[in-house]
Amino acid sequence: MPFVCICFWLKSDYMKHEGFKVTPWEVKGDIDYEKLTREFGVRHIDDKTLRDLEKFTGELHYFLKRKIFFAHMYFDEILDEAKNGGKLYLYTGRAPSGPVHLGHLVPWLFTKWLQDKFGATLLFQIPDEEKFLFKDNLTFDDTKKWAHENILDIIATGFDPRKTKVFLDTEYAGHMYKTACAVAKKTTLSKLKSLFGFGDSNNVGEFFYTCMQSVPAFLPTTMEGTPTKCLIPCAIDQDVHFRLTRDVAPQIGFPKPATILSRFLPGLTEGGKMSSSIENTAIFTTDDEKTVRNKISKYAFSGGRENAEEHRKKGGVPEADVSYQYLTYFMEDSTKLKKIYEDYGSGKMLTGELKQITSEVINDFLSEHQKKREAARDRVDDFKICD
Amino acid sequence: MPFVCICFWLKSDYMKHEGFKVTPWEVKGDIDYEKLTREFGVRHIDDKTLRDLEKFTGELHYFLKRKIFFAHMYFDEILDEAKNGGKLYLYTGRAPSGPVHLGHLVPWLFTKWLQDKFGATLLFQIPDEEKFLFKDNLTFDDTKKWAHENILDIIATGFDPRKTKVFLDTEYAGHMYKTACAVAKKTTLSKLKSLFGFGDSNNVGEFFYTCMQSVPAFLPTTMEGTPTKCLIPCAIDQDVHFRLTRDVAPQIGFPKPATILSRFLPGLTEGGKMSSSIENTAIFTTDDEKTVRNKISKYAFSGGRENAEEHRKKGGVPEADVSYQYLTYFMEDSTKLKKIYEDYGSGKMLTGELKQITSEVINDFLSEHQKKREAARDRVDDFKICD
Repeated sequence: MPFVCICFWLKSDYMKHEGFKVTPWEVKGDIDYEKLTREFGVRHIDDKTLRDLEKFTGELHYFLKRKIFFAHMYFDEILDEAKNGGKLYLYTGRAPSGPVHLGHLVPWLFTKWLQDKFGATLLFQIPDEEKFLFKDNLTFDDTKKWAHENILDIIATGFDPRKTKVFLDTEYAGHMYKTACAVAKKTTLSKLKSLFGFGDSNNVGEFFYTCMQSVPAFLPTTMEGTPTKCLIPCAIDQDVHFRLTRDVAPQIGFPKPATILSRFLPGLTEGGKMSSSIENTAIFTTDDEKTVRNKISKYAFSGGRENAEEHRKKGGVPEADVSYQYLTYFMEDSTKLKKIYEDYGSGKMLTGELKQITSEVINDFLSEHQKKREAARDRVDDFKICD
Repeated sequence: MPFVCICFWLKSDYMKHEGFKVTPWEVKGDIDYEKLTREFGVRHIDDKTLRDLEKFTGELHYFLKRKIFFAHMYFDEILDEAKNGGKLYLYTGRAPSGPVHLGHLVPWLFTKWLQDKFGATLLFQIPDEEKFLFKDNLTFDDTKKWAHENILDIIATGFDPRKTKVFLDTEYAGHMYKTACAVAKKTTLSKLKSLFGFGDSNNVGEFFYTCMQSVPAFLPTTMEGTPTKCLIPCAIDQDVHFRLTRDVAPQIGFPKPATILSRFLPGLTEGGKMSSSIENTAIFTTDDEKTVRNKISKYAFSGGRENAEEHRKKGGVPEADVSYQYLTYFMEDSTKLKKIYEDYGSGKMLTGELKQITSEVINDFLSEHQKKREAARDRVDDFKICD
């Protein structure tokens, strides 16, 4: 059994918050993933499923070993389908309201791994209308600009151009709106109010949008002309959309989509989720080496003690340390990671050294990503579909 | 001043109802057009506007003389634009949930006249999702079938193929959804509830749909790349959609559309509006001569007296007589119409004779329409746009 770094830091005594909130638009507070799993009615990825997957794929992504992807719905059915040689689709997305940060990349990196292992076609939705509808000052000119920038990051993630279709909702609506209406017909206002917490002062686009987010889960069936299974890798805050999708699917003649759900990459300064809209919490994919070093050095919440002496004596708390958490997401080598966990926990490693290692790991990752991102400028047409 | 047949029959003592209801989905009861005009905040088409229009077009359509088109918003601005040689668009529509009846043709016939007189491009929306969303048992297979059938009637109306674009919302959504979202962003649930009387048990598509009905009013500007005026000829029940459109337009950078509004062609058996969904109230464009004669003879509500003797003595009530009302819509010759009005009112003409005349007028009209409708089967591609 490989080393498993369970990310229970948010529940540690070191950082105790009362309550938390997880919606597709807001993640706040001390997230209790156990509670979330129960409340959302999703399942933990159990050891049997992991063994079955490993048997099929030959290896397990460290996101699975470390329980970064930790929950699912119907993933076992996807695995059965794959074993039987059935055709599979993947579907994930990115709402284009700003630059891509490391937190966005987590599901994408995992999706790429799944695409490689399953040979699956990936539908990559850019719901440009979502952020437009939810953010007062965001225009469609803004979303267009960010969509273009974000697609560079998507391509840089390494998806197979022959098997990846990236589309903007407002451009691809000719292929989506009809199915969105089929979803809408089965979706009352009461249901949306209770699922999303909307009220009558919300705009009608905010209510309707979730129908468009359901559509790519059904496109595989439309595209193949036969019921085709779809797996959605995403962060757990998106699950509410797909609960609705799963509910509606059989009513309108589509297979229910499966989901595989991740925890959130924490923001630099606080728990919850890395977010572009909270200052100093995000490392962007375009940040240069110095910026990354500065951000981590200045803002990354530390699990260290008050001073070096205290730290050497009592040891740090890696579960509470944001730099350490980042290593669980970006350092693939589990032996090295375990050593850091132990050295930091025992007090042998100080916060400064841990931050140094994390900066290097992230900068190595970003250096590669940025090269691919630049090269992607000429490749947008290989990935994007409009009609 | 030509003979004006004011259709005040619904307010006559002969047929007194309490209350009425006019929504885009339901027209019920004894319609008080005066009250409707006030409540909807639209304006009567006054004599000055009619004189100005006649000066520009050289003649007035008898729908205007007879106050069948009786109300408007901003029609005077459209006229000014036309006088100044500005480019104009027309926009009307047809939701495809069944066969076309005579009532549907009224705004189309007038729209054709406007197209001829103004040389305007016509956008003809087929909101196939509307009826799908509002009618429980209607499928998209049904709307597809009816859309095709209805387009034959649209073409038979005689629109200029070089200046007419017919489109289904679900097919043309790639060009509409983005603008619909712009409308949606400015439209709260509260507003839709108060405008349309929806509640939380309505489906979310019913709420969102009106945003799509706004879009063709803005397409002229999008298509021309410069603010371009749009005139919407339609029955007055559609005005509520365009009140919302007018409200949102300046907020999202489009000119407010103008409307020109008609009364309803009454159903055979009752007042209100001819409707496919109420049995025996509709004459369809595909009805043969005998069917039309039978329907009028059997079902057309009569303004005659209890027996011939009584009728000769007291005279009939043309304002209450559905057959007579139909003549006001389909008999162009105002001198003949006036004579019938007088003869029926004086008791000289009996109900049977009136029904005979109405059957002939409608059958003459339909015979021509049906020939053009058959010829339209090969012309659909000349009118329809998908992308």
